[in-house]
Order: sequence, then C-alpha cells, then structure tokens
Amino acid sequence: MPIDLNCDCGEGFGPWPLGDDAALLPHVTSANIACGGHAGDPDTMRRTVRLAHELGVKIGAHPGYPDLLGFGRRVLPLRPAELTNSLLAQLGALAALVRAEQATLHHVKPHGALYNQAAIDAIVAQALVEAVVSFDRQLVLVALANSVLEEVGRAAGLVVAREAFADRAYESDGTLRPRHLAGALILDHAQNLAQTLMIVREQQVRAYDGTLVPLHAETICLHGDMPGAAARAAFLRRELVGQGVLLFK
Amino acid sequence: MPIDLNCDCGEGFGPWPLGDDAALLPHVTSANIACGGHAGDPDTMRRTVRLAHELGVKIGAHPGYPDLLGFGRRVLPLRPAELTNSLLAQLGALAALVRAEQATLHHVKPHGALYNQAAIDAIVAQALVEAVVSFDRQLVLVALANSVLEEVGRAAGLVVAREAFADRAYESDGTLRPRHLAGALILDHAQNLAQTLMIVREQQVRAYDGTLVPLHAETICLHGDMPGAAARAAFLRRELVGQGVLLFK
Amino acid sequence: MPIDLNCDCGEGFGPWPLGDDAALLPHVTSANIACGGHAGDPDTMRRTVRLAHELGVKIGAHPGYPDLLGFGRRVLPLRPAELTNSLLAQLGALAALVRAEQATLHHVKPHGALYNQAAIDAIVAQALVEAVVSFDRQLVLVALANSVLEEVGRAAGLVVAREAFADRAYESDGTLRPRHLAGALILDHAQNLAQTLMIVREQQVRAYDGTLVPLHAETICLHGDMPGAAARAAFLRRELVGQGVLLFK
Amino acid sequence: MPIDLNCDCGEGFGPWPLGDDAALLPHVTSANIACGGHAGDPDTMRRTVRLAHELGVKIGAHPGYPDLLGFGRRVLPLRPAELTNSLLAQLGALAALVRAEQATLHHVKPHGALYNQAAIDAIVAQALVEAVVSFDRQLVLVALANSVLEEVGRAAGLVVAREAFADRAYESDGTLRPRHLAGALILDHAQNLAQTLMIVREQQVRAYDGTLVPLHAETICLHGDMPGAAARAAFLRRELVGQGVLLFK
Repeated sequence: MPIDLNCDCGEGFGPWPLGDDAALLPHVTSANIACGGHAGDPDTMRRTVRLAHELGVKIGAHPGYPDLLGFGRRVLPLRPAELTNSLLAQLGALAALVRAEQATLHHVKPHGALYNQAAIDAIVAQALVEAVVSFDRQLVLVALANSVLEEVGRAAGLVVAREAFADRAYESDGTLRPRHLAGALILDHAQNLAQTLMIVREQQVRAYDGTLVPLHAETICLHGDMPGAAARAAFLRRELVGQGVLLFK
Repeated sequence: MPIDLNCDCGEGFGPWPLGDDAALLPHVTSANIACGGHAGDPDTMRRTVRLAHELGVKIGAHPGYPDLLGFGRRVLPLRPAELTNSLLAQLGALAALVRAEQATLHHVKPHGALYNQAAIDAIVAQALVEAVVSFDRQLVLVALANSVLEEVGRAAGLVVAREAFADRAYESDGTLRPRHLAGALILDHAQNLAQTLMIVREQQVRAYDGTLVPLHAETICLHGDMPGAAARAAFLRRELVGQGVLLFK
Repeated sequence: MPIDLNCDCGEGFGPWPLGDDAALLPHVTSANIACGGHAGDPDTMRRTVRLAHELGVKIGAHPGYPDLLGFGRRVLPLRPAELTNSLLAQLGALAALVRAEQATLHHVKPHGALYNQAAIDAIVAQALVEAVVSFDRQLVLVALANSVLEEVGRAAGLVVAREAFADRAYESDGTLRPRHLAGALILDHAQNLAQTLMIVREQQVRAYDGTLVPLHAETICLHGDMPGAAARAAFLRRELVGQGVLLFK
Repeated sequence: MPIDLNCDCGEGFGPWPLGDDAALLPHVTSANIACGGHAGDPDTMRRTVRLAHELGVKIGAHPGYPDLLGFGRRVLPLRPAELTNSLLAQLGALAALVRAEQATLHHVKPHGALYNQAAIDAIVAQALVEAVVSFDRQLVLVALANSVLEEVGRAAGLVVAREAFADRAYESDGTLRPRHLAGALILDHAQNLAQTLMIVREQQVRAYDGTLVPLHAETICLHGDMPGAAARAAFLRRELVGQGVLLFK
C-alpha cells in the first residue's frame, strides 16, 4: 500500500517568504503550490514549481479564497460562480507557469478556509469541483478524508485522494482536534510515524480519547509551519521507506 | 485578401464597467480580453469570453503590466523574467476561463504601455514573446506593424498578425500620430473606411502630411473608447463586406 | 427645521469612474467620499474633496469593508479590532487629503455592507464607533434612523445624524423595502418631495402598505446610482428651499 | 552633541512578518513605520505604533511607492501630484493609528526607491515635501545627508534631520558604497561604533579609500535586515551612552 506525503508551499508573496520550501520539499512526494489567491506571486510560483520539478515531486495547485491580507484563512461570502471563476483563474495561472517549466500539473488541494468550508458545505465543495472539472478532469482532487468534498468530487467523476494528518490529533468522531486544545499538535517524531503507519496499514487512527476511528487515506499532510517541519518530514519519510511502506513518486 | 477587425474588451473591474462590449463585439472578428493585469477580474473575464464565443468572435488574451490603478498605461520597471512570469499567469488565467466555456484561445495582443514598449524595446518584446512561446506557440501574436515586437515574434517562430488602425492618423515615418496633436483621431466613417481599404488593397496608408507610407497589416484595431465606437465598427464591417473585402472569422 | 441632503461620491477607482459627481454634488449639502476601502484612490479622493469644497458642500468620510472587487457590498469576517484599524486607516487617508485642500472633515457615513451590518450588529457598530471616537469625536456619525448604530454611536457620546431616504419605500416596521420588491424605488419627483416633506415636517413616513411610521431624521440620502439622480436632487432641493424647508449648509 | 538612532519597522504585511521589530526597537530612539504603501497593513501598523510608543521611541512615518509586490524598491512612474496624493494617504493612515494609540507622529522618512530617488531628483523630492508640508509642517523630514531632498525640504521650511549610516561604507564623494561591492557592509561592531563616533564628534567619515569626507548628520540608520541587527544596535547604543554621546529621546 503506497502512501503519498504532501506539503503546502510557495506561500510567500513578493519580498515576504513563508516557511522553508527548500528544506521541506526534498522529503515529500507531492507539493501543493499557492496560486496567487491567498499567497504566491508569479515569480514565487514559478520558482516553487521549478524546485518541485527538479526534485521529482508531484506538482499540485493550492488555490484559496482570493484574500492576501487574510491569507485565505477567512471565509469570503462569494457567490458560487464567483468562487468557481476565481479558482479557475488561479488554476490557470499556476498551470501556465508549470507548462513554462515543462512540468505537469497533477493535483489540486484547496487552502485554509476553502479547505475547511468545502469539507462541510456542499455548495462550496460544488463550486470548487466545478472549477476542477471544467479546467481538467484528469487532476486528482485532494480532500479531507470523510468530507463533503470527498463525496462531491467523486460524484463528479474526479479521482479523489483522501488526506490524513501525521502531526495532528483526531477526535473520536473522526474530525481533527482543534488547534487550541491541548494535544492537538503531535510534535513527537515517533508518534508521527506511529500514527502514519496505523493509517497506512490498518486504515484507522487512535483518537485523542483512545478510541479507534476508521480512516482511509492516500496522502499524508505535513505542515510546513510547525516547529521542526523539515526534520519531521525527513524522519517520517526515511522510516516509512525503511519499514517497507511504498511512497508514491 | 481577408482582413480581421479587432477590439479590446473585458476592461472593467468588479463594479466598474468600461466601454460597451455588448454593442461593439458583434461588429468585430477578434476580441482581445483583459486578463486581470491592467483590468479584468475572473467574473468579467468569463462573461466577456462567453459573449465573444456566442458571437463567434475569435478570442484573444490582452495582457498588460500588472497595474490596476494605472490601467497598464505606465511602464513598470519589471525585470524581464518577472514580466514573463506575470504574463504567463495572465495568459493562464484567461485560458482557464476560455476552457471552462469550451472555447479556444486564438491570439495574444499586449495592452497599453506594454504594447507601446514592446514595439520599440527588444528586451520587453523578448520577455513577452518568451511568455507566449512557453505557454502556447500556436497562438497568434498581434503586434504593431513594423515594430520590434513583430520582428522578435517572427524570429521566435510565432505567427504574427500586424496591426493597423482605421481610426488613427499616421505620420510619414509610419508611426501613429500622437493623440494630443490635431487630426490624430479619425472620427469620420468614410475616412475610416477609406483608410482601411487602402491598407487592405494597396498595403499602404496616406499619412497626415499626404505622404504615402507602405503598411502591411492583417488586422485592424477599433478603439472601443472612442466616440461612436459601435456605430463606427458596424459601418466599417458592413462596408467592407459590401465591397468584397473578406473578413476573417 | 433644517434638513440635510447627502450623497455618496468619489466611488471610482483609477481609470474607472462611477456616477456623475459633478452633476450631483451641486444639489446636496453633504458629500460622503469613498476612502480607498471599497472604492476611491488618492487622486480620486482628492479631486472629489476639492469639488465638494469648492461647492461649499460638507465633506464626510464614506469608509467601507476593504474590498475593491466586491465594492464593499459583502460582509467580510473581520475581527472587531481589524475592522476598527482598517476604518482608522481609511479615515486618516481621507482626512489627510482634506487637510491638503484646506478643507474640514465633518462626518462619517459607513458604506454598503458595513452600513447595513452596523445597523443591526452591535459588535460591528461598536468597531465602527471605536474608530470614529479614537480618530475624532467631533465628527458627526451618519446612521440609519432607528438602527443599532444610532444607539451605539450616541452611547459613545457622538453626535448622530439619522438618515432617511427620499427615493426608497419603507415597510410598516420602519425598515427599507428590499430593492428586489415592486415599489422599492421611488423614481417620481413629486413622491420624492412628498416623502421628504412628511419626514421633515411630521417626523413620520407612509409605508408601502399605507401605515404611518414614526421617523426622525436629520439627513436625507440621495442615491447617485439611481436613474435621473442629478435631476431628482435638483428638483428636491429647489422645492425644499421654495417651501421654506431650511437646508443645512 | 546628541545623536538619534533610527530603524525602519512595521514592514510586514498580513501573515508575513519582516525583521524582528521587538528585538530591534528597544535599542533605537526613532522608529520609521511602514504606512501600507510598500508594506504594512492597518493591524501591523497599529501594533508597531503601540510597541514604539510603549518603548518611548519617537514615531515616524515610512511611506514608499505604492507597490507591495515590489516592496517599494522600484521607481514607479507616477505623476508628481499622484505621488503627493499617495503619500498624503499613507501619512494620514498612519497618523490615524498613531492618534488612536494616543501617541504623536514625529517625523517622515521615505522608503527604498523613493528615498533614493528623492535624494537625486528634485521633482520627486518636491512631490514628497509637498505631501509633508500640506499634511503637517511640524514633522521632521529625514533625508540622506547632502541630498537633493535635504535642500528641497529646507527650502520649504521643514526641519530636516540628515541621515548617516553606521553599517554602510562611504565613497570619497560622500555617497554610499553600492551594496554589491566588497566592503559595502560594515558588520563589525567596533567599526560601527568608530564610524558613528567620528560622524558625531568630527562631522566627517573615513571613506572606503581612506579619504576623510565631511558629513553632518543628526540621525544614524540601523538596518533591521542586516545580520545581527539587534545585537549591533544594542552594542552601539550602550557604547554611545557609555562614551557620553547623548541620545535623543
């Protein structure tokens, strides 16, 4: 059972970098690159595409609400068609830079508030899926496992990669433990590995309260903004390979 | 000898329209649609693409310096790679909306200060041509006849459509008579037609001072922001068809 | 009993104008000038300030949600302090241009979604009032009559000018009849006048269903974007003066 | 002879910080705060104003060309009135947030390309001085020593604080040694101190080639983006105090 490791990247803007893509990308198999909506400008986008391409990492679009100041972390009240059109423009912008680097666009993973909203709101999920389908129905859609977006994407005929987390705790209902609660972040490398292995081998996860929760996932997200992100990613990848868990490439 | 009539369009932004695309587009054969750089937002872009597509008008990208407040009318000191990347992002954004409308992108015509600068500055022309070539070398490049851009585009293997003007006077050196001088604008319909016919049939134009100037052009630009633009376009098209001048479609 | 006539203005951006300020401003006594949040750029702001100042019209700030593309017509989920700071920056920007014209800033009237939201949501109203109070507590706050904003503004010690409408119908509960319903807009000049006179002389308005509704207002809004706006304003002002209703100046 | 130590700050935008203001500000006597033109958003501006105010550091505006993506490092071809109006809006925005913190605005120092251009171009200097004079002629203008801006500012009646550098080498003509040349940056603390003391006590500086160059300055700039900025500032301040050089406060 192969597993994919993904991270968000290219999330700087102009003079302002964010995270350390050069340190993190060598350890993942998929890169989600910001498209100018919540972050990213054409130069940053192209530089990040080139870096991922050189490393042989699969390139994905990471579109968000068009809101630089808010970094796509707040839900904007866009009409569905307006959201679809904004996402199409973002996908197209990134795809053009991917093409200029003679690389290939592989997947789409929504960012921040759009990711969260599309996971629970069928109208937002539909607006997003509509953008992907009308842009390129061969693209893989990355969605939170067990989310509304997973359903809506599949119903539209898209290949959906379900996403799980190595560095976040789960609640017994399968949702992520909110960041502000104790134990929400898993910083320990051994625990990151153990949670990932359980997801990959047993299709389940042990929730914060000890419950076993079913969880099918094809890709594991590594947060670039968590302390020690690159070291965590390096460890996880090395151990997964060492334990015979195949990585997508 | 067929001739093409083109106009710039989709140059509003959010709540602010510009020009009357619905009145002008039925009379042209090519539409140059703003791409979000100097004007245009995803909704405006899509609406304009749809309108052109329904009318059977060829759809082109109309990218410019990324400068909404200045409407792309001032030269921004971008590095060549930065300009190329900005233009790639603009082309890609429009192309995605074109694809969503199941239409086809046909050509690229730069806007405003970029059009003027690329006509005389080989570095800017090269940055623009680089964007077109690496995005899609099948796209036709619309360039001022006898400009640096025409040369650079052809040298890169692009099909170049040379542009001339029905509503602007020429100087004896083949350049456009500057707008602030008397007689720069040609508002009279009969004169618009006469100048167009001379360009199409004789490959020359009579300059403001009476000189005959050689001028080869495959497309005639109609300015949407000049008084009576739609009526001028309607007259010109009807007369050209009536006089047996074939229009590209 | 004097009455004030106000209109929103300066709502263009860069190359894009909106409404015809030069035609409307001579007929009002207060101008609400966009501050760069939902519309307006420094040049447009200064030009509009100068025009109002030359006409002897009172100058007010017309801040909105920072959202050019949406023209401030959608509620952005800003934290209260973030909204306050955005509004302070908008007030300060306009005030600087007012000072450069040696004019005086007189009032503040929120725009669009901010106006509507502050009328019903005490947290938004408080964030707005906080901005006005900490910027300049001598400024008059223009608020929808009978709104939450009116209350919150008064409680903070601000002078509040209650606003009513000459060109919009009212419901029997004192709210404005929604724009999409029949009869929402009052385009007839005689009716505009009659409604204004009833508000001024009787402190009441006849609702769409015939009910008499109490309504105290110190300022009447004239929408610049309604058909025949300048002619309506000219008629209304002339008749009010003719009938002895004093206008603030 | 007292001397002032200044640094640029508040140069983040939304989610993106820049430099470490909290580490640097305790060691300077003047803070130049970005105003939303090249960097800074209302929240960042207010937070930085508050920090400077709490530390008793003089608060200045640090306006720049309105160009977030380019961080104000490229010269935009604005008309003089357009530049003046943009700067007025920036000054006003910051001043409003200063007022909300019950602090006082003390000075204005232009940023990046605007600083450099105003140092050599009288039209740009005049546009900047025009903004300061019409906003508040009590504000101190910080200008490169011996620059066109110094002259233009003084001619307009402004108090000008001439700026020199502790961490940059000078050429024998009094200009700064360009950053790309060897020895342009002075990273050694003892040298930073020696250069500052020579400027303060002798009104001269030893250029890179050994020449002694006259240099009158009232304020010393410390770059927050140079390696070890906070430690350099701490050392310099402690030593200046220890050696009896009075610091403005």
